[in-house]
Amino acid sequence: MNIAFIGLGSMGTPMARNLIAAGHAVAGYDPNPKALAVLSENGGKPAATPAAAGQGADVAILMVVNAVQAEQALFDGGLLAALEPGAMVVLMATCPPGAVKTIAEHVGQTGRNFVDAPVSGGVAGAEAATLSIMVGVGDAVFERISPVLRAMGDKIFHVGQEAGQGATVKVVNQLLCGVHIAVAAEGFALANKVGIDPNVILEILGGSAASSWMLKDRGPRMLQDEPPVTSAVDIFVKDLGLVLEAGREAKAALPLAAAAYQMFLATSGRGDGKADDSQVIRSYSLLNGTG
Amino acid sequence: MNIAFIGLGSMGTPMARNLIAAGHAVAGYDPNPKALAVLSENGGKPAATPAAAGQGADVAILMVVNAVQAEQALFDGGLLAALEPGAMVVLMATCPPGAVKTIAEHVGQTGRNFVDAPVSGGVAGAEAATLSIMVGVGDAVFERISPVLRAMGDKIFHVGQEAGQGATVKVVNQLLCGVHIAVAAEGFALANKVGIDPNVILEILGGSAASSWMLKDRGPRMLQDEPPVTSAVDIFVKDLGLVLEAGREAKAALPLAAAAYQMFLATSGRGDGKADDSQVIRSYSLLNGTG
Repeated sequence: MNIAFIGLGSMGTPMARNLIAAGHAVAGYDPNPKALAVLSENGGKPAATPAAAGQGADVAILMVVNAVQAEQALFDGGLLAALEPGAMVVLMATCPPGAVKTIAEHVGQTGRNFVDAPVSGGVAGAEAATLSIMVGVGDAVFERISPVLRAMGDKIFHVGQEAGQGATVKVVNQLLCGVHIAVAAEGFALANKVGIDPNVILEILGGSAASSWMLKDRGPRMLQDEPPVTSAVDIFVKDLGLVLEAGREAKAALPLAAAAYQMFLATSGRGDGKADDSQVIRSYSLLNGTG
Repeated sequence: MNIAFIGLGSMGTPMARNLIAAGHAVAGYDPNPKALAVLSENGGKPAATPAAAGQGADVAILMVVNAVQAEQALFDGGLLAALEPGAMVVLMATCPPGAVKTIAEHVGQTGRNFVDAPVSGGVAGAEAATLSIMVGVGDAVFERISPVLRAMGDKIFHVGQEAGQGATVKVVNQLLCGVHIAVAAEGFALANKVGIDPNVILEILGGSAASSWMLKDRGPRMLQDEPPVTSAVDIFVKDLGLVLEAGREAKAALPLAAAAYQMFLATSGRGDGKADDSQVIRSYSLLNGTG
């Protein structure tokens, strides 16, 4: 297939490389010239604009930061109009379900097909082509796009027939992830307040019914003052923000997500937005006077 | 050792049986005559009062419901005065750290040794002698009591030198457990509100960074209307209540635990306290109009 790939960041770059390795022709766009140079080294074709990347493409993949960037590339940037009639537009960024539905409608009005397909698995999953991809689209288009998705991920879930349903599953995923990080910090903060060694907490809880993927992954970094950054606080400010936006759209109360969001938000507000997301524990430490 | 065992419920009965199997002489007390009959069948000696169970005992184990029952048995029930001088009093029930410290002081004033040793692992762990036991006590007493504890559990953690520290670790454990159950329900509730199949959520999130022990264990029962009861809503009303009490004692803010507690509390308040704790999802369903 001829694929236009928009957004060559830390995830987009290896995803595009995996598409090329699977035999697809990839024309890519990113505002960062270094990202375009890497695409070229990997066998792709750098484009000067989204429209140039989309010229004659059967598929456009958007791995941008948010829905606004997707709209800019598709509509203002001329990507959508440049695509072949009947082309598929695959939105893989994490976006609010309502925005995804709006974009899908605009894409559909031009006769192209919209595929709602957010991912999870992080940079490691992008590089190894082991991403989880949550797809909301009708059966016929799902069949057509599946070979492309399988070049980037090995867990392809067809979660529903409509645009926005993939985005919702991703939002629910991030709801649990964000709360699990925050509650681990809350537990360590209580232990710190009463003088229990947090390493003991980590050892015991990591092997008990209190365990979570996030406790085991982020817990050790919560016990470090300046851990390496694997995912930043600001990512969860964004993602829990999307969770609450999805809740507003659906008019569903999400009390735990709302409380967890406050702790990430305040962490970012103090200037720690680029720190590792485990450092949400700093908000608890300051709040409880243990920092 | 001569052991007095107080509280022969669903956990205490198999714990006493495992002590007998390890060669200890166990005299037990419980207000329920059926529990005493089972103890007798298992080779233990039923006692008519806590004091009778404690006569000549080197060790007293308390596996009662809460701190008030422990105080009743020890002080009003005459257990403490009946024990040998230098005996060890082992409190294994889940209790607030402050109450544990108070009981420890009273026990210490009589020359006996207090061992703060709450457990996790549930009825299955009690039956298989695979409980986790979190022990707060000085080194010398820890050495003396360890063989007794190892007859009931295979993961013995010496978490600190002081009474109340074992209780605190257990409280932090229950903080994460309770929030993990509630946030799983919150995620399913959002999915239900927007028409996503919750089985899809369970499958995807169970294998992602959003996973937790509780999501995998309680998640399937959240999707049933009347699941079997493995642990009741009222257990988490009690345990998250203890978490918040520990927070009050330490004057530490626990915003996620407080929010989760409200959902369990309201579930119990509608008459569902005896239902499986997965049914905290009913509070979300009613709140969001999806039930």
